[in-house]
Amino acid sequence: MIERELLDFDNWSCPLPLRDNPTVVMGHGGGGQLSADLIKYLFLPAFDNPVLAQMGDAAVVTPGGPNGPRLAISTDSFTVTPLFFPGGDIGKLAVHGTVNDVAMVGARPLFLSVGFILEEGMPLDDLVRIAASMAAACRQAGVTIITGDTKVVDKGHGDGLYVNTTGIGLLATGLDISAGRARPGDVVIVSGDIGVHGIAILSIREGLQFETVVESDTAALHGLVAEMLDVTPDIHCLRDPTRGGLAAALNEIAAASSVGIELDETAVPVPPAVHAACEMLGLDPFYIANEGKLIAILPAEHAEAVLARMRAHPLGLRAAMVGTVKEAHPGMVVARTGIGGRRIVDMLVGEQLPRIC
Amino acid sequence: MIERELLDFDNWSCPLPLRDNPTVVMGHGGGGQLSADLIKYLFLPAFDNPVLAQMGDAAVVTPGGPNGPRLAISTDSFTVTPLFFPGGDIGKLAVHGTVNDVAMVGARPLFLSVGFILEEGMPLDDLVRIAASMAAACRQAGVTIITGDTKVVDKGHGDGLYVNTTGIGLLATGLDISAGRARPGDVVIVSGDIGVHGIAILSIREGLQFETVVESDTAALHGLVAEMLDVTPDIHCLRDPTRGGLAAALNEIAAASSVGIELDETAVPVPPAVHAACEMLGLDPFYIANEGKLIAILPAEHAEAVLARMRAHPLGLRAAMVGTVKEAHPGMVVARTGIGGRRIVDMLVGEQLPRIC
Repeated sequence: MIERELLDFDNWSCPLPLRDNPTVVMGHGGGGQLSADLIKYLFLPAFDNPVLAQMGDAAVVTPGGPNGPRLAISTDSFTVTPLFFPGGDIGKLAVHGTVNDVAMVGARPLFLSVGFILEEGMPLDDLVRIAASMAAACRQAGVTIITGDTKVVDKGHGDGLYVNTTGIGLLATGLDISAGRARPGDVVIVSGDIGVHGIAILSIREGLQFETVVESDTAALHGLVAEMLDVTPDIHCLRDPTRGGLAAALNEIAAASSVGIELDETAVPVPPAVHAACEMLGLDPFYIANEGKLIAILPAEHAEAVLARMRAHPLGLRAAMVGTVKEAHPGMVVARTGIGGRRIVDMLVGEQLPRIC
Repeated sequence: MIERELLDFDNWSCPLPLRDNPTVVMGHGGGGQLSADLIKYLFLPAFDNPVLAQMGDAAVVTPGGPNGPRLAISTDSFTVTPLFFPGGDIGKLAVHGTVNDVAMVGARPLFLSVGFILEEGMPLDDLVRIAASMAAACRQAGVTIITGDTKVVDKGHGDGLYVNTTGIGLLATGLDISAGRARPGDVVIVSGDIGVHGIAILSIREGLQFETVVESDTAALHGLVAEMLDVTPDIHCLRDPTRGGLAAALNEIAAASSVGIELDETAVPVPPAVHAACEMLGLDPFYIANEGKLIAILPAEHAEAVLARMRAHPLGLRAAMVGTVKEAHPGMVVARTGIGGRRIVDMLVGEQLPRIC
């Protein structure tokens, strides 16, 4: 009773967005538990169908009939602010983000559609720069923008521009990569330093200065995935840990596969600048967004060979084995800490950094 | 010199958005000449490739190789305001709009992706209603939402929600429907009353009262297209005249095919309420957006049979032959008026009604 009085439950205000909020809150777009709830309780029941229910980074369909080619389709809207940041811009991000989602089922990305929502008053010069950046990213990734749309909203009802990209990729036969395929005994690999994109955005947005400029890691990962699949097609899960970071991606896999995941915290590559920024700001690098990194879960027997091939690729130089899949604590991600303890790496309810992609 | 002084060229202000504006203006999203300029001078050079350059309502690709199925892909972002209007809402519009773009190359729409950009503070109940409306529109149209994405932007940086849909359809062999295929001697058919969607939006937005409530004509047109193609696969052009109305769609065809188009103004079905609203507001129904109408251009020999089949379909009851394709005045649309004159039906520079879809 004393505690109740001290905490003043009747007049408290919660620092997290309330989960029973009657309106949209920022956390609904954060890639954490609120995003998951919105999908689970609002969109999935409304749009009920088995393809959507698989909830992969990309959906797999065979529009030409069962013997036709398998296509991977993914869509993503980009609302990052600011539009330009160290290492990239919203256009580059919009190409890489969707290319990566298509690549995370093992498909080769081929085509993109682009939808622009421009805000009245946006400098056309900025749009020119962003279009050029998208074109360069497409050329480098070997994808083609085949169709597009442009809308303009009144000044004050946008943020310069929002971009939607939808990607179409071709999926080779024999591949079956999805969040539900992690098995006890599998290993968890991360392709390199985590937290870089999020800290790059945060630093420019908040005007933070670090000893070195942190540049976004935004990159197209399908080349790296192709190398990995060349070692073995028996890769169980792939995810690019964007919103919600490593923690959200691994929690989604643990839940979808009904397995436990144990991380070795000290094995996860966190660059010094990200570490320093997180210490200073009270953030956890496991929850920071990445745009050029992937997580792979695969049988232990292939781990060394896949890691070796990854480290020979420019985007996998610092690839590392960071954990294992367990039968214990299904649906839960646990980290062994540097001092020998264990902590639960839960999914955030909302988000640490809004508007990161 | 006197005129120059009277007009005061040095201090004039132009009622139309300036074409050499250094920033984005509303007209860049209006489907008129400014939209066309943005695409022609900014996006096409940046994203240069032959599929995009065809500028159809949908792009046609064969991701499985030359012998694989032909797919039609189209993307559209929806920023209509208000979100709910007589006869529909933004969700229904987002399904129909993209289904129709896919149908306008003769393809059967199969799958949709959906990207939501939600504004912080939007009532979740509205989102529930919109999702339910999209689901119903999908069921009715026989398409499936296979993948999606949700972002949230800060209060004041959206308008409740924006929706992007990207559609994938299957294109039968032998069909070649595009804006560049109109030939002298072809006839122009419109599937019914024009101007209804635009006036419905305008009436609710501006609080205008007419004798009868004008309801949006939003509808999925692929069933009607299938009927038409069942009469003859030899249809040259199809367009759904949305932003920019009948005028923009016909001007695009005239330009792409290097032909002249002559309209019989009195043959174009304009419902009395649209006519009255346009008279009152000084608008031209040829420029008002439609969401459940199509224009078809086809050889004269098939016209009667196609028209008869259209009139037997609920969405083509008031289909009419409204013009012919000429060798004269290539790239230009001309209307014969009720009193025997002729007027040029040009493309607008900007738009009459912003944020119509």
